[in-house]
Amino acid sequence: MSRLSDRDEAITMSNDRSPVTVIGLGLMGKALAAAFLKGSHSTTVWNRSAGKADDLVDLGAVRAETISEAVSASKVVVVCLSTYEVMDELLAPLGNELSGRVLINLTNGTPDDARKTAKWAIDCGVDYLDGAIMAVPQMIGASDALLFYGGQQDLFQAHEPLLKLLGGNTTYLSDDPGVPMLYNLALLTILYGTGEGMLHAQAMLSTANISATQFQPYAAAWFNNVILPLFSSLDAAREVDEGDYATEVSNINTNRLALGHIIKASEELDISAKWLAPNKALLDQMVNDGYGEDSPFRAFETISPVRRNKRS
Amino acid sequence: MSRLSDRDEAITMSNDRSPVTVIGLGLMGKALAAAFLKGSHSTTVWNRSAGKADDLVDLGAVRAETISEAVSASKVVVVCLSTYEVMDELLAPLGNELSGRVLINLTNGTPDDARKTAKWAIDCGVDYLDGAIMAVPQMIGASDALLFYGGQQDLFQAHEPLLKLLGGNTTYLSDDPGVPMLYNLALLTILYGTGEGMLHAQAMLSTANISATQFQPYAAAWFNNVILPLFSSLDAAREVDEGDYATEVSNINTNRLALGHIIKASEELDISAKWLAPNKALLDQMVNDGYGEDSPFRAFETISPVRRNKRS
Repeated sequence: MSRLSDRDEAITMSNDRSPVTVIGLGLMGKALAAAFLKGSHSTTVWNRSAGKADDLVDLGAVRAETISEAVSASKVVVVCLSTYEVMDELLAPLGNELSGRVLINLTNGTPDDARKTAKWAIDCGVDYLDGAIMAVPQMIGASDALLFYGGQQDLFQAHEPLLKLLGGNTTYLSDDPGVPMLYNLALLTILYGTGEGMLHAQAMLSTANISATQFQPYAAAWFNNVILPLFSSLDAAREVDEGDYATEVSNINTNRLALGHIIKASEELDISAKWLAPNKALLDQMVNDGYGEDSPFRAFETISPVRRNKRS
Repeated sequence: MSRLSDRDEAITMSNDRSPVTVIGLGLMGKALAAAFLKGSHSTTVWNRSAGKADDLVDLGAVRAETISEAVSASKVVVVCLSTYEVMDELLAPLGNELSGRVLINLTNGTPDDARKTAKWAIDCGVDYLDGAIMAVPQMIGASDALLFYGGQQDLFQAHEPLLKLLGGNTTYLSDDPGVPMLYNLALLTILYGTGEGMLHAQAMLSTANISATQFQPYAAAWFNNVILPLFSSLDAAREVDEGDYATEVSNINTNRLALGHIIKASEELDISAKWLAPNKALLDQMVNDGYGEDSPFRAFETISPVRRNKRS
């Protein structure tokens, strides 16, 4: 009996064509609505400037005249707005209309923004999932598009087939609705750090008339042979987790000198090295504290507030 | 006749066992001397604190009592000191002894440090190559160890078999002796940017009790699927070289918001985001200048002094 009912539910879920509403039709919101339409869901859309819905209406979407009408059209309401400020302004008056529905929030913000919205939703009797999209609009619907979710796990499971329409690599992370955005921002921080380093490197070379194209094979080899093994490996992660920074390979003394050379050379070349100064100060501090022979990953002990608090 | 003499020279070179001197026996200098010994070169070594030579003497190296004796022992003198200040202090009085010899300088500094030393050497009648080691001491001698050289190309070619003992991936870059160090610092800048991003990311996650080990599979996938295609590809290099920043994928407006979220979330979590502030200011400025719809790579136009000067 129990097996049969499980199977029935699975069939119902995979054939689910229940209506869905998408609020916010920027490039990403449009891609989300298009993916639901492609999955044969009746899709109601709304945007503050109504013209943004035109393409989607051509694809079969229903244009709601008001946001209240949009919310009322579907049990599942997906929100993807430019900022939490805009979202708060639009949704705050709609607690009653949303009550009893499922709110899936894909707006970008901070983990605390997500947690506050989750609390507001639950207070209004709204089921809530927070999501973070690790893909550009062009990737939405692809089997390898990565989306993180957090919040009520049973809710995620119930709506997983619908959410999989947005990306094959749909991953539930935590019942803490702030965690998807935390992962999102953490991954983006790596991207911005790498990008800052890359543009700075290309700018240095440009001063000797060396193009980014000439530099590319060296950079690519460096990424594959040095940067990936150093930072994306399980060994590197364990070093940080265990807080064991003994090294025979490359220590803080050596890297402090090298970073000093980068800063000096950048100044000689009229390239701003301001973004590297906090890192240099950290290495200086660790040398002063007697850790010069340790691995530079020891910086984690200062950067992470959890480790700082553990020591104090 | 000419073919025969070419062949004789090649045989001589590959069988070359001419003496070599290594000055500076830190971890890297020791690895260099050990590689020459392994290649059956008579190797004379010197270090300010003489005890550092003990291991090498056990391997067959000759310990010079004075730096002057070390220089006089070999036609080829390899120098690997901690800083250019130390090197200048040690070598400045030895112009006469070095005259007529080959100085291969593997000391780390700035491109201008290398260029000044090259000028001094040539003024003293010393043949000069500047090199940059893109490897840790443990990798010296390996077939994939990468070393860059710049300066007199004929000199590099004459000594290539000797230099290949230090690393199979020995690459001559330019007759400008500053270029190896420029490549070195450029590649290290990417490494420091990525490392800063990685430790910041791990620190953010630590606030929600998520370990670096838990994060590792996501970070590894992110490196492979997003960061490498975005930054190490030939397409990305061409975008910068051509200065064509039109994009349909991810623009400055979007990334400026995301970076703002990282900074806000970091402050909420008590993680210093100071190193990200210059990048945020740059994105803000580009939005103010009307480039919000362009690719963030447009930052290169501001970071590179060559591009700045081209416009002014």
